[in-house]
Amino acid sequence: MYRTHNCGELRLTDTGKQVTMSGWAGTIRDKGGLLWIDLRDRYGITQLVFDENYTDKSLFDVARSVGREYVLQASGTVIERASKTNKIPTGDIEIKVTELKILNAAKTPPFTIQDDTDGGDELRMKYRYLDLRRNEVQKNLFFRSNLAIETRKYLAGEGFIEVETPNLIKSTPEGARDFVVPSRMNKGQFYALPQSPQTFKQILMVSGFDKYFQIVKCFRDEDLRADRQPEFTQIDCEMSFVHQEDILRTFEGLTKHLFKSALDITLGDFPRMTYDEAMRRYGSDKPDIRFGMEFIDLKSPKGSEFGSGADDVPPGFAVFDGAESVIAFCAPGCAEYSRKQIDELTEWVKRPQIGAKGLIYVKIEADGSTKSSVDKFFTPEVIKTWVDKCGAKPGDMLFILTGEDERTRKQLCELRLEMGSRLGLRKGDDFKPLWVVDFPLLEWDEDEGRFFAMHHPFTSPKALDIPKMESDDRITLKSMRADAYDLVLNGVEIGGGSIRIHDRDLQSRNFKLLGFSPEEAENQFGFLLGAFEYGAPPHGGIAFGFDRLCAVMNGANSIRDFIAFPKNNQGRDMMIDAPSGINPKQLDELGIRLAPQA
Amino acid sequence: MYRTHNCGELRLTDTGKQVTMSGWAGTIRDKGGLLWIDLRDRYGITQLVFDENYTDKSLFDVARSVGREYVLQASGTVIERASKTNKIPTGDIEIKVTELKILNAAKTPPFTIQDDTDGGDELRMKYRYLDLRRNEVQKNLFFRSNLAIETRKYLAGEGFIEVETPNLIKSTPEGARDFVVPSRMNKGQFYALPQSPQTFKQILMVSGFDKYFQIVKCFRDEDLRADRQPEFTQIDCEMSFVHQEDILRTFEGLTKHLFKSALDITLGDFPRMTYDEAMRRYGSDKPDIRFGMEFIDLKSPKGSEFGSGADDVPPGFAVFDGAESVIAFCAPGCAEYSRKQIDELTEWVKRPQIGAKGLIYVKIEADGSTKSSVDKFFTPEVIKTWVDKCGAKPGDMLFILTGEDERTRKQLCELRLEMGSRLGLRKGDDFKPLWVVDFPLLEWDEDEGRFFAMHHPFTSPKALDIPKMESDDRITLKSMRADAYDLVLNGVEIGGGSIRIHDRDLQSRNFKLLGFSPEEAENQFGFLLGAFEYGAPPHGGIAFGFDRLCAVMNGANSIRDFIAFPKNNQGRDMMIDAPSGINPKQLDELGIRLAPQA
Repeated sequence: MYRTHNCGELRLTDTGKQVTMSGWAGTIRDKGGLLWIDLRDRYGITQLVFDENYTDKSLFDVARSVGREYVLQASGTVIERASKTNKIPTGDIEIKVTELKILNAAKTPPFTIQDDTDGGDELRMKYRYLDLRRNEVQKNLFFRSNLAIETRKYLAGEGFIEVETPNLIKSTPEGARDFVVPSRMNKGQFYALPQSPQTFKQILMVSGFDKYFQIVKCFRDEDLRADRQPEFTQIDCEMSFVHQEDILRTFEGLTKHLFKSALDITLGDFPRMTYDEAMRRYGSDKPDIRFGMEFIDLKSPKGSEFGSGADDVPPGFAVFDGAESVIAFCAPGCAEYSRKQIDELTEWVKRPQIGAKGLIYVKIEADGSTKSSVDKFFTPEVIKTWVDKCGAKPGDMLFILTGEDERTRKQLCELRLEMGSRLGLRKGDDFKPLWVVDFPLLEWDEDEGRFFAMHHPFTSPKALDIPKMESDDRITLKSMRADAYDLVLNGVEIGGGSIRIHDRDLQSRNFKLLGFSPEEAENQFGFLLGAFEYGAPPHGGIAFGFDRLCAVMNGANSIRDFIAFPKNNQGRDMMIDAPSGINPKQLDELGIRLAPQA
Repeated sequence: MYRTHNCGELRLTDTGKQVTMSGWAGTIRDKGGLLWIDLRDRYGITQLVFDENYTDKSLFDVARSVGREYVLQASGTVIERASKTNKIPTGDIEIKVTELKILNAAKTPPFTIQDDTDGGDELRMKYRYLDLRRNEVQKNLFFRSNLAIETRKYLAGEGFIEVETPNLIKSTPEGARDFVVPSRMNKGQFYALPQSPQTFKQILMVSGFDKYFQIVKCFRDEDLRADRQPEFTQIDCEMSFVHQEDILRTFEGLTKHLFKSALDITLGDFPRMTYDEAMRRYGSDKPDIRFGMEFIDLKSPKGSEFGSGADDVPPGFAVFDGAESVIAFCAPGCAEYSRKQIDELTEWVKRPQIGAKGLIYVKIEADGSTKSSVDKFFTPEVIKTWVDKCGAKPGDMLFILTGEDERTRKQLCELRLEMGSRLGLRKGDDFKPLWVVDFPLLEWDEDEGRFFAMHHPFTSPKALDIPKMESDDRITLKSMRADAYDLVLNGVEIGGGSIRIHDRDLQSRNFKLLGFSPEEAENQFGFLLGAFEYGAPPHGGIAFGFDRLCAVMNGANSIRDFIAFPKNNQGRDMMIDAPSGINPKQLDELGIRLAPQA
């Protein structure tokens, strides 16, 4: 037996016990005649003590030969510590060791295994097995494991059944790029890895499973960013005989349960906002509502999609005159910003990632007077109307962007988030969930000259908008709204879903809108269209990004910290060195060849 | 709201309530002025009633237009039934319908949606969404979902953490054939789908996670049989600081818990048997011990791997003289078998799948005399010694096979199982678990002229056998035993595992035994060898075939019945029609081409 106790459980009441423990050597302190080794495992740290006065010479020599990260098995007696510490739960005791076995030696790790490690990203990815020893990373994975348990507990309690859907499915050109898997038994053909179990969960509804969920790996072959991974995990759910309200209620319940059980945080009822309103007030379909700085339209086109139709800008300034929209927000307490700071912010919004042409500001001085970069184009009275409209107070600053309505909102959204961060208003431990509802059904793709489904091709248009499907007018089609919703938390989309189409005819019409020929629709989704002919119930669902949920609940930015073995931005697993070449025999068996390198 | 109640919950005490329910039309009975529709959902069946005497004409017409599998929403009053039935829990009531909405129509299904369906395998696979509506299939998937919940409950209670390991990993030629995934970002390179998370779970032990589990999809590109699927699910587990005994105790506990919670069956302690003993007594490393008919060696070579060294066969019969082994078992009550039945059995063992040259029998008549196919070669006294040795009684029959020892055992094993089935001794509701331990470390592959790991290359030899690794002698190497174990249930291997090597040097020597050059070992498993240098703890684990466990616990033969969307023997998903061709643009992006068809 390697241990009678783990390294986290012994207390003063255990004094006198004969124990055996196993673990890793942490800090080692050698005071000549006295030697202490911190023995560490998943459960905690227990101090081993060796004393020349009573420790056998040969045992003492073994102890002295121990290095950091050696794997040890120690037996001895639990004794009260001379100098207790309350930094660790076992701080009142130590083990007077009578037997010590080195189970495995260890080389010196290439970086320190501490919360504040000196290892860079690449090094830690390569030696992920050492990085995973760090308390910080372990804590994240325990959090994740626990969150999955609580998710299952809640959903099982609500009558959901977990069904495993296949990973080797069919490639469909709609949506993101598929990872494909060549078939050996069916040469020239390929499976695809699922981007989501979407059609399968709908099939399960047609089959009468009523409430389905699955915590499931999904795959997208997209170029990677910090918060994207080629494989990621979803909490995937679907329900039958439901309206949007039923889904929102159920999954608001799940979210509240997760916060309560994992963080002991009680969330109030989640506010809701339409997509249009979110775009108007925050320029984003996933607004961070931990802080204000809402958008105020100074000028926006009448009848535009998101604008309020405001007109508070008299003509005379060419930039404003030529702009579709002029939109402001008030940054509280920023009137003290120096010329240099404003210039730096101006450069920031002009970077290609944001793409604004410039940044206009209005400082509200302590005496209520204003100072603005457009002072020479507008009277103080006009500028005062803007200040009033934005509810700005002395000491505040207005930031204003102009241009085409939708683009300006997106640019201003980035600036708002940046200012929120700079002002410390985006606290990791402040949680502000929000349902964004009534998403557009369709999204026009300028490059391909056709509509794409904003959510996915199975999303139901709102009942009132169904007649619009027959229209030829792009504006009319673009105005259609869907029974689609996102759950947004602190500016991050953590879940999204929709009520689905369950009528074959409506689904066919939707495919047509998306540019599918009847043959393409049949070829790719024939089974679903077929299923709809045999008694499909009304149904809808949602999927949560599980990695992202873990990250946001911990106030972390990157999902990588919550994935045991993440890939880097080139899609590589640095530890195992994958992907890699495979041998020609494998290619032959699969009936494929490598294309000559360009 | 689509429903106030589901179709399984209303009782007599609900009489008088106004309710709304949704579901599928099952049996419809039309008696002219009276019409009943069984409304079905996952939760049960509730009878709707329409009566010309009080049902509105237009409502009655709607009701009459309903066909099987239509999706309905019905509102009405709960009333006591005139003719109650105790066949369903809602049999005391029915719904006097006041409002009926057809939510979706349905074509006539291509097969009946009943326990005893008239649909063949292929048809049901193609219309899996209808097959999944059958009570039988739903029951299986609910069983599976529940078994996963209970697995997680037990393991979490034992301190295991569930960690998701990656699905896009590295291809290794060892073991079964990998499915591979071409990488777009790293052209010419491939990921592999995991055959198991083996190396990752070992890495997690090196990282100090101590107890890991995962219910996880695994992938093997092998030719398929009834109980094989290209993707399957494992309960994958690993523990640190353990000996074999710790693993066996923990997972015997899990198995007992699953039987108790899912089937309310209390299993006693599991017997154990060495691999050698299992081969000697049953000719199999996964013996079905629900019934006896153990092997009795009449002749077997001294010092052979499995034989007892028996010598109860005097010379004189060429077939026996030339055979390495002569092995019998007693089939109780089979003395009445006719000549025709024996001939048929003889043909059965001579089929290529079994490959025996012939079948020898000894009938023990009611008076104790014997009648045998080898009567002319042996005296009744000699034959009597066989009968006695086998413990056969009047009315029994001995079956005897001869030939090379190991092959004869395997052939006789098949016959034993067949006889067990024919005699009704392999009951689906009789559960006899068994640990088979001390598996050989290595398996000689005649074709490739080298050793393969019987379990996998990370399995630890037994401590006493480690010195044998230095041997050049094939027999010595073959005699090495490993700390490897299988959990066998009713003749099916439901779990298998081993204590792993945790020493870099030992692992390198094992790779060498398996024919890896140091470069190959480094290239394929360098990360693991590296990890072993930084303090790897002793560790071991096990993996359960989850699909198979579900099947065996239900006395079912095929794992397909417990998989929501299985593939057929050609690896095809008949419903979605995958795999399929992909477009040339996708191939281009991936840098691969199809090889010309041969």
